[in-house]
Amino acid sequence: MSVTAFSAVDAVSAVGPGPLLPVVGAGLPVPLVTGRSVLYANLDYAASAPCLASVADRVAQVLPYYASVHRGAGYASQLSTALYEQARSTIGRFVGARPDDEVLITRNTTDALNLLAGCVPPGAGDVVFLDLEHHANLLPWRRGPHRWVPVGGSVEATLAAVERVLDSAPAALLAVTGASNVTGEVLPIDALARLAHARGTRIAVDGAQLVPHRRVDLATRDVDYLAFSGHKLYAPYGAGVLVGRSDWLDAGPAYLAGGGAVREVRTGPEVRTGLEVRTGLEVGAGLEVRAEVSWQTGPARHEGGTPNVIGAVALAAACDAIAALAPGALPGHESALRDQLVAGLSAVPGVRILRLWPGGDALGVVSFTVEGEDPGRLAAYLSAEHGIGVRDGRFCAHPLLARLGVADGALRASVGVGSGAGDVARLIDAVGRYRSSGPGWRYVRRPEGWAPDPDPRPVPDWAGSGALPTLAGTCTS
Amino acid sequence: MSVTAFSAVDAVSAVGPGPLLPVVGAGLPVPLVTGRSVLYANLDYAASAPCLASVADRVAQVLPYYASVHRGAGYASQLSTALYEQARSTIGRFVGARPDDEVLITRNTTDALNLLAGCVPPGAGDVVFLDLEHHANLLPWRRGPHRWVPVGGSVEATLAAVERVLDSAPAALLAVTGASNVTGEVLPIDALARLAHARGTRIAVDGAQLVPHRRVDLATRDVDYLAFSGHKLYAPYGAGVLVGRSDWLDAGPAYLAGGGAVREVRTGPEVRTGLEVRTGLEVGAGLEVRAEVSWQTGPARHEGGTPNVIGAVALAAACDAIAALAPGALPGHESALRDQLVAGLSAVPGVRILRLWPGGDALGVVSFTVEGEDPGRLAAYLSAEHGIGVRDGRFCAHPLLARLGVADGALRASVGVGSGAGDVARLIDAVGRYRSSGPGWRYVRRPEGWAPDPDPRPVPDWAGSGALPTLAGTCTS
Repeated sequence: MSVTAFSAVDAVSAVGPGPLLPVVGAGLPVPLVTGRSVLYANLDYAASAPCLASVADRVAQVLPYYASVHRGAGYASQLSTALYEQARSTIGRFVGARPDDEVLITRNTTDALNLLAGCVPPGAGDVVFLDLEHHANLLPWRRGPHRWVPVGGSVEATLAAVERVLDSAPAALLAVTGASNVTGEVLPIDALARLAHARGTRIAVDGAQLVPHRRVDLATRDVDYLAFSGHKLYAPYGAGVLVGRSDWLDAGPAYLAGGGAVREVRTGPEVRTGLEVRTGLEVGAGLEVRAEVSWQTGPARHEGGTPNVIGAVALAAACDAIAALAPGALPGHESALRDQLVAGLSAVPGVRILRLWPGGDALGVVSFTVEGEDPGRLAAYLSAEHGIGVRDGRFCAHPLLARLGVADGALRASVGVGSGAGDVARLIDAVGRYRSSGPGWRYVRRPEGWAPDPDPRPVPDWAGSGALPTLAGTCTS
Repeated sequence: MSVTAFSAVDAVSAVGPGPLLPVVGAGLPVPLVTGRSVLYANLDYAASAPCLASVADRVAQVLPYYASVHRGAGYASQLSTALYEQARSTIGRFVGARPDDEVLITRNTTDALNLLAGCVPPGAGDVVFLDLEHHANLLPWRRGPHRWVPVGGSVEATLAAVERVLDSAPAALLAVTGASNVTGEVLPIDALARLAHARGTRIAVDGAQLVPHRRVDLATRDVDYLAFSGHKLYAPYGAGVLVGRSDWLDAGPAYLAGGGAVREVRTGPEVRTGLEVRTGLEVGAGLEVRAEVSWQTGPARHEGGTPNVIGAVALAAACDAIAALAPGALPGHESALRDQLVAGLSAVPGVRILRLWPGGDALGVVSFTVEGEDPGRLAAYLSAEHGIGVRDGRFCAHPLLARLGVADGALRASVGVGSGAGDVARLIDAVGRYRSSGPGWRYVRRPEGWAPDPDPRPVPDWAGSGALPTLAGTCTS
């Protein structure tokens, strides 16, 4: 595919920051419905970030040594085990884990929070959470005793609402996101931790959005549990993390019953003496085998089965890369891009930037609506005519969207270390053109979502599919 | 590291098969305690197989397009979604999934069987399983009503025992491994499926060991559910699979509560009209938010959170590579290597090959003991003095090891597409030398397992650790 440069956009990009770190897929040409190709402008970091080049390099370095972890006496097995356990330590250090914290490798934040939900001690009280949460930090808690807190119109009003709910009955855990995946607003974690701890309540932070953008130190922030995902932290190899206090985790039921999670599975005497002896209690016409199982503590208790070594190593490599950035470089980069996004979009007539609270700290995650325009149609236009990737829909946060008065959805643009001012400028320019002149192609609403009609964009030969799917997806609808 | 060839072994390898497919890490030099280096002989495929070269290539091809799957309107997001859903189809085709089967991407077999265990309909009857199982196909079922079947002294006696137990009371599901992870013996799946189905019982097959070695076709074998792992199928990127009947899966509780698993989360009227209106029921001093959740059916129900796209694509690429082998090539390759293993090891005085049943089909997985020798010490010797990787311990199958009369453990050698006769010959030669002359180094038993003392083997600079761990691991102990 030949790539056509946007000359106007290139001029704009010169006045803002370029990418902070190289990512795999930077400079990716993508086709437009017009037949031209442009460089992909990825403004969907908040859903899944691209892989850091240094992470992909680390995976390539380790892969020849990949072998059975925690199992096997061979050199490659022992090295794989060392790499896996080092990854755990690196990840723990990255978030300031305390010496007695556990660092569990999970598949993603959703998985980590489901695991933690299973370990809240029975009878310890409810789990309390705000209604601004992503479903991952909302649905797992509904399986046990819980209370929702409606978010207030300001940070102060929200803190007061949390305080009232915590005071109303004993709460075991306050579960709160570090930053909204919709508005990008950063939650007052320190104040919430103080409110919780003053009442003997623990605090768990959903760090899926926060950790890729801001350094979080569990010890100094006095946070009990933190969950986050590799796919949002530039390491899309299927691993996530739960870090935190070991006592609940060591006492809770094993999350994945299976190999590695048990110390011992002991069966009745009839099988311990070999094949011949077959006594035992009759059950119906069969023979009963009685078994006793003693479960592990520590990470092994919850990491049944062969763990995702490559995923953990990749996530640790991403932590190393972020940790190596100059102090302030990451928030500075994203703050500049967010300011550019907010200023540029606000200048387009009819655009509303979604926020819960006036002012306050926010990440490079900006959701918005355009008056009278369907978010799905606008997202399809941005992709089909401009090669820009954004997210539209309800962002797996239905209650929050309803609260914000946009129950039918919105658009979201989000940036990260691979983003530059040129990407943002292209979005602002394209939204402005849409508003002033409308789209240059026809779009239809299919059951799966909005799509260009026709959609002549080719897919790479190796992708094995004749056409792009119109898969809006489960969280968009 | 300089690599010293084993001239005697090279001569032997010329008379047997070489590798069937290229794997990442083939020709890996590893250090010995003597200061020399040799090519790594990986004989631990049954725990975790190396990555196929074609799988690593596929991941490199796809990674630049990695973006938010099922979410996002951008070209890369849509292509990632297409690749993920194609991977699901490819995997389903590889195992002969029926049109109404679901193909769920999990993290590994353990995860897949835990998922299925949660979906066995309450009141439908027990889950029945044999005591030869790996813990992954044993511990998940113990969380509900279940019955164990003690394995018989022959295939026929085992079938009769299963029949008696199935007849004794209604059983919802018969869960059975496709092949033993200890003895390599292949279970009589067809006969077990007939026994089960004649009684209205479904059958689930733990395919972790079977699928990497033999083609399995769900439709023709009449198997209801099949679980297997990417890390044993040459795709170690953190994904596994559960394939099977959709009715139980669509009715069971969502495995991972979170984003993507729900159609709709609807909260009470007090939040649906915007920020201002804040009525709702008082609960203590807080406000109650009532919520209704409607869950998805299909794969989305159980794949909450962002799925492991790279893992699924890698696993599908491995399925493609195995499917492209000439008919009979894979079983032929492994059968030749197994025969070589069994014949060679049996010729060493004091070696006992573990088997449950006389004769019968078996994979390239051979466990053995050496009379009077500690398996852990022998495994440490094979690694330290010969650069051979095997597994020792109890293989996450404690009841079976007890039944086989080797409750203190054994050694296991296992082969795959990257193995050749030279690897097997080196093992046989090294075990023979150990038996005739003893080890040439000192070994000590530490709490974590046996280790050379001292252990001067270096680790690569980039591995960031000064020494190899003596981590025998949780399933070895």
